[in-house]
Amino acid sequence: MIKTLITGGGGMIGQKIAQELETRGLDGQPCQITLVDIQFPPVISSGQTAVTASMEDAEAVTRLAADRPDVIFHLAAVVSGHAEKEFDVGWSANVDAMRFFLEALRQEHLKSGGTYRPRVVFASSAAVYGGPLPAVIPDDFHTAPQSSYGVQKVIGEQMVTDFSRKGFIDGLSLRLPTICVRPGKPNAAASSAFSGIIREPLNGETAVLPFPESTRHMLASPRSAVGWFTHAATLDTTRLDGLRAIMMPSLTCSIAEQIEALRQVAGDKAVALIKRQDDPDVVSIVGGWPQEFDTPRAHALGFRSETRFSDIVTAYIEDELS
Amino acid sequence: MIKTLITGGGGMIGQKIAQELETRGLDGQPCQITLVDIQFPPVISSGQTAVTASMEDAEAVTRLAADRPDVIFHLAAVVSGHAEKEFDVGWSANVDAMRFFLEALRQEHLKSGGTYRPRVVFASSAAVYGGPLPAVIPDDFHTAPQSSYGVQKVIGEQMVTDFSRKGFIDGLSLRLPTICVRPGKPNAAASSAFSGIIREPLNGETAVLPFPESTRHMLASPRSAVGWFTHAATLDTTRLDGLRAIMMPSLTCSIAEQIEALRQVAGDKAVALIKRQDDPDVVSIVGGWPQEFDTPRAHALGFRSETRFSDIVTAYIEDELS
Repeated sequence: MIKTLITGGGGMIGQKIAQELETRGLDGQPCQITLVDIQFPPVISSGQTAVTASMEDAEAVTRLAADRPDVIFHLAAVVSGHAEKEFDVGWSANVDAMRFFLEALRQEHLKSGGTYRPRVVFASSAAVYGGPLPAVIPDDFHTAPQSSYGVQKVIGEQMVTDFSRKGFIDGLSLRLPTICVRPGKPNAAASSAFSGIIREPLNGETAVLPFPESTRHMLASPRSAVGWFTHAATLDTTRLDGLRAIMMPSLTCSIAEQIEALRQVAGDKAVALIKRQDDPDVVSIVGGWPQEFDTPRAHALGFRSETRFSDIVTAYIEDELS
Repeated sequence: MIKTLITGGGGMIGQKIAQELETRGLDGQPCQITLVDIQFPPVISSGQTAVTASMEDAEAVTRLAADRPDVIFHLAAVVSGHAEKEFDVGWSANVDAMRFFLEALRQEHLKSGGTYRPRVVFASSAAVYGGPLPAVIPDDFHTAPQSSYGVQKVIGEQMVTDFSRKGFIDGLSLRLPTICVRPGKPNAAASSAFSGIIREPLNGETAVLPFPESTRHMLASPRSAVGWFTHAATLDTTRLDGLRAIMMPSLTCSIAEQIEALRQVAGDKAVALIKRQDDPDVVSIVGGWPQEFDTPRAHALGFRSETRFSDIVTAYIEDELS
């Protein structure tokens, strides 16, 4: 029985990882699954234990560490827009709380005489990249984030690297591209439309497209993301050569290509539900984002993603609409 | 009168910056100079105020911030070997104390209604680079440090970037190459011999060379380093395009070339004082270090360094032996 902990376990990816661990386990072994978050969906599977707590609650975090999980998926974070708006909140949640958590794990490592060394899989982000960007970003491109969230993710990665190099934990950081098609409702994120223009029409609803069809962006499905986390949970980390932050694979396509894939699956009627309505603010934000990555490291380490956007649409239909 | 503060002001570079500020001021304006460190050389110029305090002393740091210096040279740090040996000490001094200091400056910024925004020049290091390195490292190469010190410097840079982007401070981080010829005595640092093989023979003493003459390394003089800090103190930071960490310029040469420059200046007798004595540990450490940098950004921003090693030797003789 592998003891697993998912921080941010109430979120979309956390919930999907939990479901995967319950259904398939890890490398064929069954898992004990604990989720921690400040809120959860109304129904949690009876095979999972949900702990309602903030990662900024020192007592709760100390207890979670004292339970000595074998594998920790660290997804808890204040999101990009929130971290940008509330400076203190972002730094406290994304940096200070993570540092406290890693230190609590280190104390368990020390108490165990060095035998306890959990696998920690940290959800980082393509937001670590910023500034002038090349058309295709290589694996060894510098991390010069232009947002508090991006800065905080770089710091989280560096903490995972150093605590791992010293042997207190055995961690790695996965830099996630935009995950699409996200189930649920549109939200205020600038990236919302990448999912919305597929999801809403498939549900017979209108979607707003706030940027031009020529916009290119890097995408992978929630299914791929879950696969990365479970793959990372059992990966031989000696293969990382000390480089413990890895940009995950993705495909890059234009909005026009996304729409064409929707048309093939759901026809012109679905496409007609997309309303073009340029929003200069969103156009400007999205214009500064990375468009394409070359990720030979991730591929060599066995991380996979879709190569055609139609596969991303199919994954959404299979996983969410059937 | 420009109010300046030098943290780590008791160290070699801190002392030289203070001397320069006292002699020449900044951009022609005279400076008020406060130094803070846990220890100082026996004699401090009467034109400088030395505060003996640790940057981990919250009360002292709050007071230093409340004094609202215009320009802060942040050099205080636990050094590489110490940070590697004592994990807690390194993280506490190099990360937590710096975060506390920046937060104290931010509080002054907020109290001032946003008018107080100090220039902060942070001493970072080429130790931010690690892992497999190209022969020549470009400005946009990733920071994948393989030491606690390097990780802590990356985190410091990221803090400076985010606090600056939000307008609380106006900072930049200078990544220093190996500074040579350091005055004083040889020390336990693996890099000690780069200075020692010049300094000791010029003083009529024996120097030990623990790695092969083919070893190539990037070097700049203390004089250049002082020039970078004072240049950074008054640089127009809008020219940085948000990329606030800059690798400083250096020259790369082999130990054989260093020795040849010594021979030209001081003859065969001086060279005969270098004793070859390979130390496999030091050879292995130095073998993992960056050798050469391509630094067009630093050059475009007006940072300069020596281009011939003989100029580094001359600088040492002029500044330390005359």
